[in-house]
Amino acid sequence: MSANEENLMNMSDLTSLCKRRGFIFQSSEIYGGLGSCWDYGPLGIELKNNLKETWWKAMTYREDVEGVDAAILMHPLVWKASGHIDNFSDPLVDCKQCKSRFRADQIDLSKPCPDCGAEGSFTEPREFNLMFSTQMGAVTTDSSTVYLRPETAQGIFVNFHNVQSTMRKKLPFGIAQIGKAFRNEITPGNFIFRTREFEQMEMQYFVRPGEQKDFYEKWREIRYQWHLDNGLRKEKLRFHPHGEGELAHYADAALDIEYEFPIGWGEMEGIHSRTDFDLKQHQEYSKKNQAYVDQTRNNEKYIPYVIETSVGCDRCLLAILCDAYRVENPGDKENQRVVLKIKPSLAPIKVGVLPLMKKPELESVAKKIFDGLNKKYKCEYDLSGSIGKRYRRQDEIGTPYCVTIDYDSLDDKAVTIRDRDTMTQERVSIDQVEKYFSDRLN
Amino acid sequence: MSANEENLMNMSDLTSLCKRRGFIFQSSEIYGGLGSCWDYGPLGIELKNNLKETWWKAMTYREDVEGVDAAILMHPLVWKASGHIDNFSDPLVDCKQCKSRFRADQIDLSKPCPDCGAEGSFTEPREFNLMFSTQMGAVTTDSSTVYLRPETAQGIFVNFHNVQSTMRKKLPFGIAQIGKAFRNEITPGNFIFRTREFEQMEMQYFVRPGEQKDFYEKWREIRYQWHLDNGLRKEKLRFHPHGEGELAHYADAALDIEYEFPIGWGEMEGIHSRTDFDLKQHQEYSKKNQAYVDQTRNNEKYIPYVIETSVGCDRCLLAILCDAYRVENPGDKENQRVVLKIKPSLAPIKVGVLPLMKKPELESVAKKIFDGLNKKYKCEYDLSGSIGKRYRRQDEIGTPYCVTIDYDSLDDKAVTIRDRDTMTQERVSIDQVEKYFSDRLN
Repeated sequence: MSANEENLMNMSDLTSLCKRRGFIFQSSEIYGGLGSCWDYGPLGIELKNNLKETWWKAMTYREDVEGVDAAILMHPLVWKASGHIDNFSDPLVDCKQCKSRFRADQIDLSKPCPDCGAEGSFTEPREFNLMFSTQMGAVTTDSSTVYLRPETAQGIFVNFHNVQSTMRKKLPFGIAQIGKAFRNEITPGNFIFRTREFEQMEMQYFVRPGEQKDFYEKWREIRYQWHLDNGLRKEKLRFHPHGEGELAHYADAALDIEYEFPIGWGEMEGIHSRTDFDLKQHQEYSKKNQAYVDQTRNNEKYIPYVIETSVGCDRCLLAILCDAYRVENPGDKENQRVVLKIKPSLAPIKVGVLPLMKKPELESVAKKIFDGLNKKYKCEYDLSGSIGKRYRRQDEIGTPYCVTIDYDSLDDKAVTIRDRDTMTQERVSIDQVEKYFSDRLN
Repeated sequence: MSANEENLMNMSDLTSLCKRRGFIFQSSEIYGGLGSCWDYGPLGIELKNNLKETWWKAMTYREDVEGVDAAILMHPLVWKASGHIDNFSDPLVDCKQCKSRFRADQIDLSKPCPDCGAEGSFTEPREFNLMFSTQMGAVTTDSSTVYLRPETAQGIFVNFHNVQSTMRKKLPFGIAQIGKAFRNEITPGNFIFRTREFEQMEMQYFVRPGEQKDFYEKWREIRYQWHLDNGLRKEKLRFHPHGEGELAHYADAALDIEYEFPIGWGEMEGIHSRTDFDLKQHQEYSKKNQAYVDQTRNNEKYIPYVIETSVGCDRCLLAILCDAYRVENPGDKENQRVVLKIKPSLAPIKVGVLPLMKKPELESVAKKIFDGLNKKYKCEYDLSGSIGKRYRRQDEIGTPYCVTIDYDSLDDKAVTIRDRDTMTQERVSIDQVEKYFSDRLN
């Protein structure tokens, strides 16, 4: 980072840019919003789609991993087997005086109520399940309580045998999935860091018992490298291994890949060695044998062990935005520049096409260039305001290249291409423009 | 269609292929399934992703349409304004004798109960709302009943002003979205035709009042052509215009694009001229002005009219599978071939790489070809069973090309490429294989 460049210093600068530039809006904003739900705007969804595609290709365009897309609504016994119905809860207390409710592990119960000041008025802590429940079916015989899945992982476990047999996979192999999950969080917040509706990108990798340690280490490295490949800076990434106390009861090893957000270090991805816990539980509750028959070992039967890689799509997107956000010449109002130095393949808009002025002769050249490029890359055509203002807008939304069509273009059949990061400008012949971008963007 | 080729004759043949080949599984199958929810397997999700990407590029990689991705959970007033809380319901009756429940409009109430045979035992019809509801928030002050959205459209309407202003759009322009929606259908069924959890691909196109008829006709043609471009046969597609009785109260024109499924003609997409109903309702309930300021007309203020194009992603995928499913030489057990003649750009697997036998020298050539192609296209590496069986499998899953590596390949540095539809085989030099596919698949 150059000396006259500053990082994102607080989340509100990013929230404001995201709102102003069409990345992320509050859900149902005209109604005052809905508790920690967010809508992706035109630029946000392009970025998110690019991120999801990058993950999907990295994780499933390999011989040993298959994808699935399980429904959000699952059979309720799934959550009994997984332990979520019994254990996926936070302890809550009520103030008997003012009826306010708090997380017992987040306030000091020996102090007065933070809302009304009453002394010693808290109820005993009760467990509050974080799953959203709903009723499915109107016909009595068919009606039951179902849950919005609190994680995508179980959609993979219950399909283990279907995928293994139909795709004729041999161990080790993985099953990957991208999808929404829902948790009725007591204390959501920090923009899209903790939300009640969120998207996960998960893979469960099934291995022979005893081999889990090697694959845990292998996937830890692959996943760490993936974040680096997305452009995140090494000094902003770290491993946080789970110690004895943090380890889930079913895990024999686990770590988080953390990113240093402006709010501090936070989990972006979890790598978990989950043993055979999940498949064993589903075997018990479904009464369907979950063993794998190992043809390379005399048809030995065993329940595979599992390495899970689970990344929060929205958190990962947040890290990418935080990392990309730079203020150049921060002290200098005149020359200050806010720029999203986002990796071109992830950038929502690849090319801004900017006719210098609103003149038919410039526009007809510009439109032709736009139409040619926009078939392959998401581009933006912009002719409102001064060229300087338009560059600033493209910088703020992370567009790696701008093509400017000026009066000289009519004579020399060339345009100016500006690089977002270096701000250098190149004159490129119009008939070379498509090649210029296919060399840089493919 | 050639004389010795048959269409898909009944849905169960397709359901069975989808299960056997890893396209679509019953949700939570090991627990006996969950009422009309389905999981996409490895091939199903590839097909679905390809279909969604095709729609997304066709609809949003144009200057006049922007994408969004709104949350599934929205402020409850959204559904009051849209009319769903008051009107989105089916009439139900109970049998007083056996307590079975039925849709009043689907049984003959003057006849005995179909379940227990009791006479004249039905209750008066009551309205049953089709929205799934749940409770959000644990803290009393924050807790409220929210709904799983029954359509994606409202996520677009409530973001109209955010998108218009941040993306500086001028009328006419559209907002597009792909996402899940949920309806507690009384009578779901017919595989993925009617499910309780489904995915929509919708666009709302905002126009000046008075111009809706022209744009309704324009979008009807664009959308019809899109289905043809996906490979659906013209004779299997038709328009079904809504007559006086069918028209929703807020619409001034509407039609369905129907496909002829094995179960008969069914709606795949709706094109609706929705007037200014939705934005007006949101203006009334949110107290936020939803007018557009038309700078090209002396800053005239008006609420735009809306043309909606709404396609069911799962239904569209079902139509593509039904249309692609062919049985060649149906009477002839020996030479019968089931083949999915799916458009190559939509096919889940683009290339099957098949070493003739499990021999290291063949495999090392085959792996190299696989690794090269699989970076760009989803490929499958298969060496189990006879080459004939492997071709049959690739035919059944719609893989447009198979590359076979045989002993001659070691000498002539060439491979055989087989075309799925014609079954013709070509010998292609190994160093030309990548170009062969980039010419055909890009």
